[in-house]
Amino acid sequence: MFEAKLVCTHCGAEYPLASGLYKCPKCGAPLDVTYHYDDIANLIEDDDPWFRESPHVWKYWMFLPVSNLKRIVTLNEGGTRLYRLKRLEEKLGFGKLYVKYEGENPTGAFKDRGSSVEITKALEFHARKVIVASTGNMAASVSAYGAKAGLEVTIVVPEGTPGEKLTQARMYGAKVEVFGKTYDEALAEAERKAMEEDYYLTGNYHYRVEGQKTTGFEILDQLRYNVPDWIIVPIGAGTHLRAIWKGVKEFYKVGLVEDLPRIAGAQIEGYDAIVRAWKTGKPIEKVQKKVPTIASAIAVKKPVDGENVIRAVRESDGHLDTVTNRETAEAGMLLGREGIFVEPSSATALALAKKMREEGVIDKDETVVVVATGHGLKDVKTWEKVLSGDFVV
Amino acid sequence: MFEAKLVCTHCGAEYPLASGLYKCPKCGAPLDVTYHYDDIANLIEDDDPWFRESPHVWKYWMFLPVSNLKRIVTLNEGGTRLYRLKRLEEKLGFGKLYVKYEGENPTGAFKDRGSSVEITKALEFHARKVIVASTGNMAASVSAYGAKAGLEVTIVVPEGTPGEKLTQARMYGAKVEVFGKTYDEALAEAERKAMEEDYYLTGNYHYRVEGQKTTGFEILDQLRYNVPDWIIVPIGAGTHLRAIWKGVKEFYKVGLVEDLPRIAGAQIEGYDAIVRAWKTGKPIEKVQKKVPTIASAIAVKKPVDGENVIRAVRESDGHLDTVTNRETAEAGMLLGREGIFVEPSSATALALAKKMREEGVIDKDETVVVVATGHGLKDVKTWEKVLSGDFVV
Repeated sequence: MFEAKLVCTHCGAEYPLASGLYKCPKCGAPLDVTYHYDDIANLIEDDDPWFRESPHVWKYWMFLPVSNLKRIVTLNEGGTRLYRLKRLEEKLGFGKLYVKYEGENPTGAFKDRGSSVEITKALEFHARKVIVASTGNMAASVSAYGAKAGLEVTIVVPEGTPGEKLTQARMYGAKVEVFGKTYDEALAEAERKAMEEDYYLTGNYHYRVEGQKTTGFEILDQLRYNVPDWIIVPIGAGTHLRAIWKGVKEFYKVGLVEDLPRIAGAQIEGYDAIVRAWKTGKPIEKVQKKVPTIASAIAVKKPVDGENVIRAVRESDGHLDTVTNRETAEAGMLLGREGIFVEPSSATALALAKKMREEGVIDKDETVVVVATGHGLKDVKTWEKVLSGDFVV
Repeated sequence: MFEAKLVCTHCGAEYPLASGLYKCPKCGAPLDVTYHYDDIANLIEDDDPWFRESPHVWKYWMFLPVSNLKRIVTLNEGGTRLYRLKRLEEKLGFGKLYVKYEGENPTGAFKDRGSSVEITKALEFHARKVIVASTGNMAASVSAYGAKAGLEVTIVVPEGTPGEKLTQARMYGAKVEVFGKTYDEALAEAERKAMEEDYYLTGNYHYRVEGQKTTGFEILDQLRYNVPDWIIVPIGAGTHLRAIWKGVKEFYKVGLVEDLPRIAGAQIEGYDAIVRAWKTGKPIEKVQKKVPTIASAIAVKKPVDGENVIRAVRESDGHLDTVTNRETAEAGMLLGREGIFVEPSSATALALAKKMREEGVIDKDETVVVVATGHGLKDVKTWEKVLSGDFVV
């Protein structure tokens, strides 16, 4: 209702929202949704009930690009807890340490925020069929929301994808289509079907960003608009980090906060395309070698939002680095001992926080929020391998 | 603060709360905690902020047996969503159909409500070490809360327990001790250690019941005190059903509701000790044969709260029955298609609701709440077997 237009994140070209584009036709880069922020500021200013409302994705409907609130597709995503870890902050020497535990979302991962918005938009565009190229958390999440909306969901995966990875999506009723030998080929097929056939394309596109930015909204809301010094996010495609930065900037634009946090992103060793580009100043180059990793959910060779991640980190005077499998496993166990069980990839954020503290990038009195993107139940098998010594970190 | 005493559920003997008993010394039956209900009624009467507060376990602190609210051990358990399933209620011919999705708890299962109270009590009793005999959801949950409280947790399991079942508990830092050949032997060892050594015993005892009854509180709260016709619960040990019935009766005693729901319990085929006793009027006898099942979390040969389940069902004019593996798998898929992924054992409640509707036990205009006790991610492997045909239902 307050959304204005689509703007290319790379070349700045503008397009109307109704265009239904999923990337910039001129340069191929991801798009951003912009809003009439003055109108939003007017709407929420001094709206006491709004401020008192508990956080959940659709509390922030005025920041979301939907035209009919009666038709939103929701499983009550978001509203995940922000845990303060007092023992751990003392042990590791932080001022305050919080973890935003996205594993509490309905399908067990942060993706549900984005899927709720994407599938709501699919209904607005009168879609009957939804397609997504993914073998993991995104596939499960899109399938759940597609099911809720009564839409047919097709998951495109490359040959050789283990059946177990698709069990959750199939339980939500999704169809699985095998295409090509690599993830890139599967993605190209999904995009082709969206262009040439009657499918609505979901994935790391701008409507997903709109849902994912609510992670940033909720962190600020749950801290009662006291801006933390750092928000640290695991990087897979980079879309979540990009989205969180967009979210906190939007809260700044409408006057909800008077300051901005610094954003840091963690890549897992071996999958360091963004970190390398950031350190060298060169363009992002696809990682060529496939190396064993415990953080398969973020083992991405060329992250689609790499450029946007680097921009967010530059703008926020933030930080980027890799963490090792060992550091990640240790961080996962530290969280476990606080009663928080996370997917291995989620533990990279705490691993990076620890590393940054040790290197003096984070000061001892600073407030740090780490985003734990998925529940440990999403990948029990990998933790089992780590505990049993089958994967030596 | 409002708790009065311990009362044996079988022989009615009374004991002081400080006694630290975990079963009746006279007859060995489970104990119940009673309260000064008039005082609770006075406290909450016309307390508008209390009524407006969102549901979560500790909203109901006045119904919980703790003496110091500053020392509760919580991971913000409870407050799980009560989903209305409009498409499914139409398809299956119910008046209204709701599912209470306990998979949204921190460790992915309903057990967290009970663990929060049990571990809080462990601190009150100045325990340093906690013990539990379990290979499943209870072990993981007690481990998480023990970790949060800074206590040492030991899980006792029989020989031959697959390591993968203990991964979640180990990630929370629990120690695993192998003892005996059967679950009963492991349980006896845990109880021995609690009596003779310095361990605090957790499991299906009365403090767990107190936490678990909040499932019943929340259902009534979320329906704004409109009492459903039926609440249907999967039966493993029977403790959850017993607890839910205790909870709704307590809301009745303090005047929050003017009516009571009927309680139904589902056992999985092959593990029908309670259903058989209920149908024949004979005492509960342990099931002898071990049969293949998709609902391993409730495949209990002699449920510790069997007698209390039968009493609840009698008192509420309720119902008990078994459902087959096939009915359970189908119900799980029906829930999946609503965007709700449940552990196989959790699907027994919907399977029973469907069966009861078909048999005319439930009328077409009645309101039914099914309790889905755990997240599908808790047992992806079994769903994988069902989908791939490795387990033919």
